[in-house]
Amino acid sequence: MKSPLSHLNARGEAHMVDVSEKAVTSRSATAEGFVTMAPATLDMILDGTAPKGDVLATARIAGIMGAKKTSELIPLCHPLALSKVTVDFEPDRDNACLRVEATAKVDGKTGVEMEALTAVTVACLTLYDMCKAVDRAMGFTGIRLIEKTGGRSGTFRAR
Amino acid sequence: MKSPLSHLNARGEAHMVDVSEKAVTSRSATAEGFVTMAPATLDMILDGTAPKGDVLATARIAGIMGAKKTSELIPLCHPLALSKVTVDFEPDRDNACLRVEATAKVDGKTGVEMEALTAVTVACLTLYDMCKAVDRAMGFTGIRLIEKTGGRSGTFRAR
Amino acid sequence: MKSPLSHLNARGEAHMVDVSEKAVTSRSATAEGFVTMAPATLDMILDGTAPKGDVLATARIAGIMGAKKTSELIPLCHPLALSKVTVDFEPDRDNACLRVEATAKVDGKTGVEMEALTAVTVACLTLYDMCKAVDRAMGFTGIRLIEKTGGRSGTFRAR
Amino acid sequence: MKSPLSHLNARGEAHMVDVSEKAVTSRSATAEGFVTMAPATLDMILDGTAPKGDVLATARIAGIMGAKKTSELIPLCHPLALSKVTVDFEPDRDNACLRVEATAKVDGKTGVEMEALTAVTVACLTLYDMCKAVDRAMGFTGIRLIEKTGGRSGTFRAR
Amino acid sequence: MKSPLSHLNARGEAHMVDVSEKAVTSRSATAEGFVTMAPATLDMILDGTAPKGDVLATARIAGIMGAKKTSELIPLCHPLALSKVTVDFEPDRDNACLRVEATAKVDGKTGVEMEALTAVTVACLTLYDMCKAVDRAMGFTGIRLIEKTGGRSGTFRAR
Amino acid sequence: MKSPLSHLNARGEAHMVDVSEKAVTSRSATAEGFVTMAPATLDMILDGTAPKGDVLATARIAGIMGAKKTSELIPLCHPLALSKVTVDFEPDRDNACLRVEATAKVDGKTGVEMEALTAVTVACLTLYDMCKAVDRAMGFTGIRLIEKTGGRSGTFRAR
Repeated sequence: MKSPLSHLNARGEAHMVDVSEKAVTSRSATAEGFVTMAPATLDMILDGTAPKGDVLATARIAGIMGAKKTSELIPLCHPLALSKVTVDFEPDRDNACLRVEATAKVDGKTGVEMEALTAVTVACLTLYDMCKAVDRAMGFTGIRLIEKTGGRSGTFRAR
Repeated sequence: MKSPLSHLNARGEAHMVDVSEKAVTSRSATAEGFVTMAPATLDMILDGTAPKGDVLATARIAGIMGAKKTSELIPLCHPLALSKVTVDFEPDRDNACLRVEATAKVDGKTGVEMEALTAVTVACLTLYDMCKAVDRAMGFTGIRLIEKTGGRSGTFRAR
Repeated sequence: MKSPLSHLNARGEAHMVDVSEKAVTSRSATAEGFVTMAPATLDMILDGTAPKGDVLATARIAGIMGAKKTSELIPLCHPLALSKVTVDFEPDRDNACLRVEATAKVDGKTGVEMEALTAVTVACLTLYDMCKAVDRAMGFTGIRLIEKTGGRSGTFRAR
Repeated sequence: MKSPLSHLNARGEAHMVDVSEKAVTSRSATAEGFVTMAPATLDMILDGTAPKGDVLATARIAGIMGAKKTSELIPLCHPLALSKVTVDFEPDRDNACLRVEATAKVDGKTGVEMEALTAVTVACLTLYDMCKAVDRAMGFTGIRLIEKTGGRSGTFRAR
Repeated sequence: MKSPLSHLNARGEAHMVDVSEKAVTSRSATAEGFVTMAPATLDMILDGTAPKGDVLATARIAGIMGAKKTSELIPLCHPLALSKVTVDFEPDRDNACLRVEATAKVDGKTGVEMEALTAVTVACLTLYDMCKAVDRAMGFTGIRLIEKTGGRSGTFRAR
Repeated sequence: MKSPLSHLNARGEAHMVDVSEKAVTSRSATAEGFVTMAPATLDMILDGTAPKGDVLATARIAGIMGAKKTSELIPLCHPLALSKVTVDFEPDRDNACLRVEATAKVDGKTGVEMEALTAVTVACLTLYDMCKAVDRAMGFTGIRLIEKTGGRSGTFRAR
């Protein structure tokens, strides 16, 4: 019996799925996540001038570089020649959090959901690292895929 | 004026902090996170025999290997000679989620909070990858440091 | 005079061969190897329940991830977007050894022999690492390419 | 019950063993392996001047760099600050093979057996890659640890 | 207003440019650089037999492997499936320097200027490392792109 | 006869030098380099607000992360647990260039000259990448070690 989990074979063993018969199509994926923190930590990131630039710039670069490492980090991911990666931040002072959104694109045989999610999580980790000296209680929440397009399974949009 | 964010210099520029004067002490950190999913997805991971083994074993290995990549992923992290990494999973059928907990240890000049958090997030990402064919709406929530010991700042425990 | 060794130029210097004029074709390669060990070590891997799963699952994941690192490890290998990697184990109690077989596929301009061989050797190394506490005299033997298809040189099958 | 396999916990799950309580001692390990080939292939590697240099030099460099990647390749290996790596080749025209020997040293809490074995296997893989255009039937045999010193388990010498 | 710097978006934030709409074309790039040193250092590299081979062979291999790491090193570079990399050295005894030239090729959506420049700089760094015990005052000068072909912007030749 | 080049053995073959008998001392190294460009390119980097931040911030992060990759890039470099890395930029409008300076520190058995030089060159490469769309004729010049301290050979200062 074939497992419904595509990364396992009939014996339940892990393998890197054969995608050689799949068509090369244009695919994209967007993921999001939220870094929760003390209001004063958010102020520190957003206010002032120089620090703001470098905290967010560092997290953005880390997220983009992280997306390129996806197939090294996730055991059964296929290596992909990404054609685009963006990472954006949106502060939410009311909820004392920073929203992270990442989009990845590829022309390939498999999707880029993992690349978008990896970009978000590495950006979150970097924000934690940059600010942990003042706020060790920061956390990450609501990390999820919000949209993907392309490929056999078509478009997905989170509700 | 020195920035309260240790990873920025007085001009707000990123740098890898000088830890050469810090003492080598025994340090540990434990982080947790939750992968939310449809109840049927959790059943698929937990029930049966072979698949269960390989889904969780793959995520565990990915988390451990991810911890070793922390200083490659997080721009300003110091490279560390980790002395221990563990990743554990605990299913919560009532809330249809899987709890991921990771612990890292080092004898070094800086802490291993980032290594523990990286292990958790890479394990979460791998669980998503293994199950995304059946449940694209999975998400990660409650990722945070729950305890750290050692170093100048001493013990931290999340409330 | 052109060297018969394609990775050397006319002066005998190493280079990464120009494959830009080669056609993209579907290619596959399968390699094998044998890990020899004490009969009691093989029993320990095969018998019982939990340990078995994790020893072989860890070696399988390591082999698959190793295949993706081939072009980082082998100086003159071209980077390839692998479309499939599998690693399988077959115990041979009569000869107290474990057979490792790996298959790699790609649609590309160069073959995947090195990827299949790398998957086998990294899986062997991981088995050694998992069991070395009880059997340091384990060894690897008979590592070789057993079949390749596709590309200008066509099909090869080991005798 | 504790597993006799140190890389598994009591539930048979993989973990990176805690070495924080172990002493830092001077450790070394030497491994060997043999690349079998057609006599004409060995002649091609050994005869002439320039090609010889670059085939063996490339495999030596690859083996040394491979040793440094051990903890990235082998899931449960601890990262180590290697203090020495050497890779040597010894041709055996009578048996049409090339012997590869690698030695690694470290002052650390865990041994360097895996680093020596990884250096040997990556050097073997590179020799295959350099010569596969003329001899796809090359193979690797007799890869094993021949000596290790240091650490709690003391000296091991292969018989 | 769109920034004239393609790696920045309208808000001046870094991103990995979207190349999904660009055509796959055959592209090449050649870069050069010069390692300046004491005349005696150059003699040591060039004279004799064995050392010469291994110093230059090591730097050549490092340059080729460095080119394959370009997208890991340069944050906004797209990963590319390089189809060729060569690194050559030309001694200039009159000026006591060694000229390094590297060429990279790809069939892809973006150019390989960075890969050629990375190969040159990593080869330069390796030459420094090999010789620094006798000449710490070595330096690198005149590193630049000398030609690129292919892509929308066409051919560039340094004056 | 021992080669004066420490990275070669008596037969002129490359090896990773045995540093196990060397003392752990506090070591630092500072390197510099210059990126030459058209005056308008320098203006573009320095003027305005947002772009400036991200071009220099990206190059700074890349240089710091590059320093951590030194032992992966340079074949015979020992892996080091860096305790500090900084990368700074100083514009020189008169000469239409940007000076890059990097400092690395370690408590270890070998020096950090290569880490400082690698940080400088990767920062230079990143600046090229960020600005190449407007100025392909940029170049790197005057890359050299300007100071090192610690270790058996003591302090070096470039003249």
